Formats: sequence, C-alpha cells, structure tokens
Amino acid sequence: MNSKKIIVIGGSAAGPKAASRARRLDENATITIYQKASDLSMASCGYPYYIGGFFNDRNQLLCSPAGVVRDSKFFLNAKNINAVVNTEVTAIDRKNKRIEFTNLLTGEKGSDTYDKLVITTGSSARKPPVEGIDLEGVTTLQSLSDADYLRKIRDEGKIKKAVVVGGGLIGIETCEALHLAGIEITIIELLPQLLTFLDKQMARLVEKYLQTKANVILKNGVTAFLGENGKLTAVKLQNGTEIPCELAVVAIGVSPNTKLAKNAGIEIGHTGGIKVNEYMQTNDPDIYAAGDCVEIPNLITGKSVHAPYGDLANLEGRVVGENVIMGNVAKFPGTIQTGICKVFDYGVGSTGLSEQNALQQGFDTIETVVNASLDKPGFMQGKLLITKLVVNKTNSNILGAQVIGPGEVSKQVAIWAMAIKNHLTVDDMVNADLPYAPPYSLAIDHSIATAHVMQNKLKGLFKGISAKELREKSKNKDPMVLIDVRNPDEYEEMRLGIGEKLIPLGQLRKRLNELPEDKNTEIIAWCKISLRGYEAARVLQAYGYRNVKILEGGIVAWPYQREK
Amino acid sequence: MNSKKIIVIGGSAAGPKAASRARRLDENATITIYQKASDLSMASCGYPYYIGGFFNDRNQLLCSPAGVVRDSKFFLNAKNINAVVNTEVTAIDRKNKRIEFTNLLTGEKGSDTYDKLVITTGSSARKPPVEGIDLEGVTTLQSLSDADYLRKIRDEGKIKKAVVVGGGLIGIETCEALHLAGIEITIIELLPQLLTFLDKQMARLVEKYLQTKANVILKNGVTAFLGENGKLTAVKLQNGTEIPCELAVVAIGVSPNTKLAKNAGIEIGHTGGIKVNEYMQTNDPDIYAAGDCVEIPNLITGKSVHAPYGDLANLEGRVVGENVIMGNVAKFPGTIQTGICKVFDYGVGSTGLSEQNALQQGFDTIETVVNASLDKPGFMQGKLLITKLVVNKTNSNILGAQVIGPGEVSKQVAIWAMAIKNHLTVDDMVNADLPYAPPYSLAIDHSIATAHVMQNKLKGLFKGISAKELREKSKNKDPMVLIDVRNPDEYEEMRLGIGEKLIPLGQLRKRLNELPEDKNTEIIAWCKISLRGYEAARVLQAYGYRNVKILEGGIVAWPYQREK
Repeated sequence: MNSKKIIVIGGSAAGPKAASRARRLDENATITIYQKASDLSMASCGYPYYIGGFFNDRNQLLCSPAGVVRDSKFFLNAKNINAVVNTEVTAIDRKNKRIEFTNLLTGEKGSDTYDKLVITTGSSARKPPVEGIDLEGVTTLQSLSDADYLRKIRDEGKIKKAVVVGGGLIGIETCEALHLAGIEITIIELLPQLLTFLDKQMARLVEKYLQTKANVILKNGVTAFLGENGKLTAVKLQNGTEIPCELAVVAIGVSPNTKLAKNAGIEIGHTGGIKVNEYMQTNDPDIYAAGDCVEIPNLITGKSVHAPYGDLANLEGRVVGENVIMGNVAKFPGTIQTGICKVFDYGVGSTGLSEQNALQQGFDTIETVVNASLDKPGFMQGKLLITKLVVNKTNSNILGAQVIGPGEVSKQVAIWAMAIKNHLTVDDMVNADLPYAPPYSLAIDHSIATAHVMQNKLKGLFKGISAKELREKSKNKDPMVLIDVRNPDEYEEMRLGIGEKLIPLGQLRKRLNELPEDKNTEIIAWCKISLRGYEAARVLQAYGYRNVKILEGGIVAWPYQREK
Repeated sequence: MNSKKIIVIGGSAAGPKAASRARRLDENATITIYQKASDLSMASCGYPYYIGGFFNDRNQLLCSPAGVVRDSKFFLNAKNINAVVNTEVTAIDRKNKRIEFTNLLTGEKGSDTYDKLVITTGSSARKPPVEGIDLEGVTTLQSLSDADYLRKIRDEGKIKKAVVVGGGLIGIETCEALHLAGIEITIIELLPQLLTFLDKQMARLVEKYLQTKANVILKNGVTAFLGENGKLTAVKLQNGTEIPCELAVVAIGVSPNTKLAKNAGIEIGHTGGIKVNEYMQTNDPDIYAAGDCVEIPNLITGKSVHAPYGDLANLEGRVVGENVIMGNVAKFPGTIQTGICKVFDYGVGSTGLSEQNALQQGFDTIETVVNASLDKPGFMQGKLLITKLVVNKTNSNILGAQVIGPGEVSKQVAIWAMAIKNHLTVDDMVNADLPYAPPYSLAIDHSIATAHVMQNKLKGLFKGISAKELREKSKNKDPMVLIDVRNPDEYEEMRLGIGEKLIPLGQLRKRLNELPEDKNTEIIAWCKISLRGYEAARVLQAYGYRNVKILEGGIVAWPYQREK
C-alpha cells in the first residue's frame, strides 16, 4: 500500500495539531514535522505565567495533559509522527513537491518529498528599528528562549526596573509577570490608549487600574535603547525623556512568518499573512497553511485579518489535518476575533467589533451601551463587571462586546461570542436562558441585563451620555443640570465632583420643584451603576423634561480621577 | 388623565419585577403589590447560603444592589409603588375586576379594583402526607421564615444530626448549608438517583462526591417522622430503618400556588401551573401571570413544563410589566430549563434535555458523549470538568448538556445554553470562537473539545461505551480485552481494577502481538480522560480490529469504587 506523505513545517500549535489529527485519520500516512526550535508543542500563551511564577516547572509548558513532555520521542511513540527539531526548512520546490532543510546544530542539509504540505511557520515579534535594539537587556517575549531569559531574571532577582514597550495584550501580560517578579515597570504605548481591541473609554478604565501597578505612558514611542558596555541602561522616548532601566521587553505586535511560502510563490494576502481558502488551502492545492502565519476572514466584516490567537491555531490545525487526509471535507469559517487577557485581578476581554472598529469598517448605524453590575449577588461576594455592547441599530444585530473587571469576564465574553458568531439580535438575548444560582450569577445575568439596557435604549426609553462626553461638557461649562440620585452616605463616600446635585431617587418626585422650569433643560442623571439613574430619567421624562440623559455605566465606569 | 390601575398579587421575584418595569414605562399608573409575607423581593435562592454562613447579615437577602432594604417604604419612595405586606388576596372577581384581601395581622378585610391584574403567587414546598410531619424539628426550606429557623439552628449550634428528605436541587443545597453548620447529614431520595435533571451516570458521579460529605440513601422514602414530646427524634424509612436526628428538612419539590387563580376560573395547565400564552397572559386578557405559579413551554419539546427558577421569574415578570402597560408587545418564548447548583466544591449544571428526558420525550435518534478535561491548563491549576452532551443524530442538533466538576461549570453551561436555545448543531460548535488565555481556558475550550468528540463519534471514528455498560459486562464476565493505555506510574497510582491490561499508548503499536488474533474481539480502551484511549482505538481499528470501544470520560468519569 502506497502511504500518503505529509510534511508539516512548524511544530508549535497548529502544526502538531494538524499532524496529530492526520494520524488519527490515517494510521498509514508518513507524517513528518520539521521544527526550527528545539522544543515542540510549546504552550506559548503560558510564558507570561511561567515568568510571573504562577508555576515553576518549565516542563509544564511542554507537557501533554497526562504530564508527558511532548518531545520527538513522544511524537514517535504515541503518534508515530517523525518530529525533527532544530531543523529549518529553507525552500519549498512545489514542482517536485520537495522541501529542503538545514539542521541548525550540525549545518547538515537535506531534502524530503511530500504529497501534502502544511505550513505552520507562526509569527515573529516585531522590533522597532531603533538604536540599541541589540543591547543586552532588550528582549521580546515570543519564543521559549525569551521566556527562559525572563524567568532567569525573576529567579536571580537582581533587576529593579524594566520598561515594557507596547500596551497590547502581550505587553500587558508581560507587565503583570515582571511586576510579580518584584520589578518596577513602566509601560510605553505609542497610541493614545492601551489594548486597541477595546474602545478608548474601556481601555481608559483598564489604564486607570493598571496605574495602581505600573507607570503607564501613552502617546509616546521609543527612539533609542541607551546602554553602557553593551548593556541596557535606559530607554529614550520620543519626547526626550530617558527612563533608567536594566530590562526592556519589546511587545509591539507580531508579523506572520511567510518568507518561505512567499519564495515558493504561495500567495500572500494584504495583511501579510498567507492567503488560504475555507479549507485552509493555499493557492497550491497540495499546500495548506494554518496558525499565526495565515490570514482568515473576519466573520462580521468579511475582510481578511491576521488573528494570531492560540485557540484559532489549534482549530485551524485540526481542519488542515482532516483535509490533507480526507480531501477538502472540513471548513474553517473564520473568526470574530474573540480575545481575553488577565491584567492582575482584572479580566479584559472582547469579541466581535469595538465601536471604533465598527465605525472604521463603515457601519454607520451603531448603537452602544455601557452596563455595570456585580457578576453575582453582593452577599456571595460578587465582583464588578463592566460591559460595552455594540449593535447595529437597523437590525439590532449584536456586533461586539467588551467586558472588563474583577468579575467573571471570561464567561461573559463566551456568552457574547456565542451570540455574535451565530448572528443573534438583542431580542434573542433579552430572554436568554442561562444558569442561575447565587454562587454563579445574578438572577438576571449581567449579559442579559446588558441586553435589557440596550433594548431600552433602542426603544428610546432613555438617552445615554458617555463619560468622555460628560467630562468635556463639564469642562466647557455647558449649561446643564447634573443629578446624582444615590443615597447621601454613598455621596459622602465618593462622588464625581463635577458640579452635581444630590437628589436621592426616593426624594426625586417630591423635589422636582428644585429643577429648572424650562423642560428643555439638559439634565444628566447617574448613580453607582446607572440603574437608579435610569429610573430617575424615566421619572423626569414623565414630568415633561425632554432632554434627559443617563451617564452610561454610572460612577463605577467613570474613567477619570474623582473628587472626594 | 385617567391613570391605569395595576394590581400585582405576590411580592417575591416576578411580582416586584413586573411592577417596577410597569412603573418605568408609565409614571402615572397606580401600581399596588399585595404580599402575603412580611418581606418583599426576597432573594430566596440565597437562603441556603445564609444558612450555611456564607454571609451573616440577613438584610442582604432583602437589599437592592445599592444596599437598601426593599421594604414598602423603598417601593413607595423609589418607585411610587404601593406594596402592601402581610396581606393575602382571597378572591378575584373577574367580572367586576376586583380583588378581595385580608390583612393577616389585623384580620381586616378590604377590596381593590384593577385594569390589569398580575398573578405571581409563587409555589409552595410539597410535604409528604406522613405521620409526624408537624413535629418540631421538621421543616421545609421555602420561605424566609424557614431560612430564619435554620439559620438560628446554625447559630445555636446544638443540633448534631439532620436528615434531608429529597435529593433534588434544594435538598442538596440544604445539605451543604447544614454540613457547613457542623451538622452530620443523611440525605434520603426516593428515586434511584440524585438530581433528576442529570442522567444517572452523571448523578452517580455527584453522589460519589457527595458521599464524602454526607450519608446518601437512595431508593428509600420516609414513612414517618418519629418524635417525643412533640419534638423530632428520628426519621423512619420505607425499609424500616430509623435514623436518629433532631432536624429534618423536607425538600421534595414545589407546587405552584394556583388556588386563587383556579377559584376565579383562570385556566390551569396539566402540570398544575397557570396556563399563559407567549405574552404571559392567562385566559382572561386582563390577567397576566408569571413566576413559579405558571407553566411555560419547553422550547425543545414544545410541551408545557413547570420551571420554578428565579431567573425565569424575573424575565417573565419583565415581560408582564411591559405588556400590562403597552399592550401585548413583549413575548416570553419559553425555557430550555437551564439550571445549576453548587454542591460543595462542585458545580452541577444542565441545560436542554438529558438523555433520559430526551428518550422519554420520544427522541429516538439520540447520540451522547462524555468528555472529561481540565477547565484550564494544569500549570494554571486547572480543575476537572465532565460534560455529557446529547444530540439528535439525524440533524446533529444539540439537545442537551450536563456539566459537573470542580472546574468552571457555570461558563460551560452558559455556552451550551446559548447553543441549544439558538438551535446550533455540533458543526456550529466545532469552530466556536471563545475567549482563550491560560488563566481562563484550555487552548481548545472544554466545550469545543466536547463538540470535537461528538463530531468524531457522529462520523464513526470511534464507538463509546458507558461506565455503566462496561461495569455490567465486566460483572457478567463477557469475553473482551480491556486496555488501560496510560503510563505505568499513573496505573500504579490508581486503576479501575476490572481485569484490564496496561499497554501504554506509546507501546501499543509494538505490542499488538499481545492482542488476540481474532479481529472481531471486543476491545475496550481507556486512559484518564479517554483522549489517549481515542488514539489507541484509532490505532487498533487501523490494524483491523472491528469491535473497539472507548470508555467514555475515562477513569475520571468512572462513578464506581476503584480498586488500587
């Protein structure tokens, strides 16, 4: 029997997944993985937690669920897959269905032939083209050797100050890891906000929290890494500031590794990732690609995106493993770009489109709300969740959700991801049937309550105002009446301090005479989370006030300094 | 202006929600709640946690999110709702749109008229008609006074032994609460399993865990409560056993309170709940009903069910509040009966149909799988989840999911609830785009992996065998070959001990000669969670064995005693 020959280039996530799936579907195929690094199947998303000391056994990054290190021997014995490490594939000869490789330790060269080829070459950390980038003490956090380097720094405990360049997901995870290692951190971001998958107001809330753990500098880039004797001593910013530090971690994003594919004439998309069809097949029908090196469709916009997420790499790898054996039977539809990251005690997650992103993509009938509440009852030590929901007003389709806070963010994002991927509307979510018991949620789950708020807004029951807009109006001294409708003790404890008047909700109906007689007066109401603010607005509207707004998310979603 | 008169009968969950929603939609309506008990808006699902000492301030059961007790004064001031407590509505005169009531403290009678009436009379705990039911020390856990009674027992610390009658949700929550109060518990269930919303094998796993905390007695009912001087001293079972105890909590389910409605000629459904249409409207167009006293459609079977869940009560109340003001504009579609309960450190949840339930409902093309894995990576201290998924083979529609374990059960159940309510198929779940980062999930989320296992089974890639079936075969000494494919150290630590042979997956291909030559031999393979078991089965099948099965869920889902 003539067995099928499968070659997989890359041994991190998508590659081993494709190889393993292929093996399970065909015991007779000859399957070989060529891996440039010395390790295989690394849990690279776990690096920050290894560095931060959440666990100490490095092997755990390389283990199967049963605790066996996934090395070449494991792949051979358990899966009959030939995994060749320390070996770089240097060329693909599509005509002869052959690859060339070099052993990086011995320099030995060789070649191998395939029936089906799988490219899973991953991505590389981008580096800014500035002076001093090669100094000792400047690193990225992309490879296991990067993780080893940073973990060693933790274990040695000598370094006191570090700069993290880049306020994206990896930058912020690195920030936590190094903070836990006892290092004082400054995080630098070129853009006006952290975590660009969030809308600015949500990012601002994360920033406000992160500032309790690290120095955050926005709208500033690195112009040079300064050093002495080849060692980093400071980071120099665009505005001239020099920040003394012994370590700098550059985390300004990743680029797909496509040189090998490109040189072989494989089509590259406009995002820089390898172009694949729904079967994860390149323009060469015998060559498939998956993971961080490809681009895939965003399911909401239909446009291609580079989405280097570990979960997608695995799912894509599974599809490829099936298709190389069975022919094109499995499809990978694309992504809604669901992501989450841990920021100390906060979860920060997003799925679908942010408002900013939706506007950029040409959606011009967007409605948004911000909803804040506990994740479960106060008596069960519920923790705060803040959700921003983005919908298309015309059909009430849910386009995106961002969730942050110390509460159960991951569950909320999962719920919205299910809603968005399956084209649900706000009305579909209003009576969602989710698991309720006090140890797990409020009687009306935070996600459902968010849908209720959105439904009320779409029905015109209230108008909202964002924290940003209110702050600007307040700075401009716009004529308006501001009402905090909480209780006096809550007000005493903490307030926005922007000229608001305290009228507790329970007194509002009796104190309407304290408001201007002009029913066109702009009135803005709020409470802690804006539930009572909503009730107040309904009362004021019923009494004829035409221009009443609620501060969305209430005081807990106010991203600025508050005055006592 | 002639304001609308709304009367709500019942002030627990659905009633206040309906009244509050009505108020927000109509500032001018006259809204009155008549409440039999002395308290309003009680968080009744929180009672077990108050009794168990998760919190000590009873007021927290009655508070708004802002910490204000929701008493009559609160309803009047904050919502302009007249909430009349300690007052029982004794009759509804539909012709004259009038109700009659009695003040339970003073005996005073009165009447009131309505334009729209809302019945939210809730449910009552069922009691077995046996001797001694009125002894001191025999109680239910349904009302706040029940909770007060049990909390006092905790605080006094005198009682040593208690019996919980009923192994349903409330029974098990009560079990935990009393155990935390330092009381030795025996739980009695008439049926052959606990928690009948679970399939037997899943319930058996919960039972096995619960046995580490309490004595569990199945297939046995209470025939009498025995006492001395009016005080409980023991519970007598059907099999004659007498269990000495000073406290018995009866939790054998609840019945909808429908007497008032029935007497007024409101139609009652076959489940005993008030019949309502999709607008939560009874057969009298001016009378709506919601909460534990109604029956609603199960969205999968289309049949009416009595689903006394706190979350549904709130959602139904919201729909009613809208409809009594706006006319029939809002619909409540029904339920997929999603539920969850905390069982000490386990979460136990279910959504949609169990296999048992699906078979009873006439589905005859059911497929099921059991999948076990950690909820997040081992290096992030992931905890076990076990999921049983039920699908309709003919269209691969997901019908139900049960999830148990110390892992993040609530999130898993929420994901499946979203899938089931929105009619997703297994293929829709295979590439779900869920939030991944190591602090929150595996790279392939447990739910997605469960869909993968199901897809593999539907494609015929493997055959499963349930723990129960394997145990029976093993007891019958059926001719078969049993293979544990884990590593020797795992095997040494713990094994099923039912005659299995250890052949680690990595050695399987080399040791095929140890297997019978007859390719029709029944071979059953497993590992800890049956992932390696699956790989082993694929190998054996590739080598011609035609009758290979995997023990579903592996060793962790084995619900029986194991031998060392």
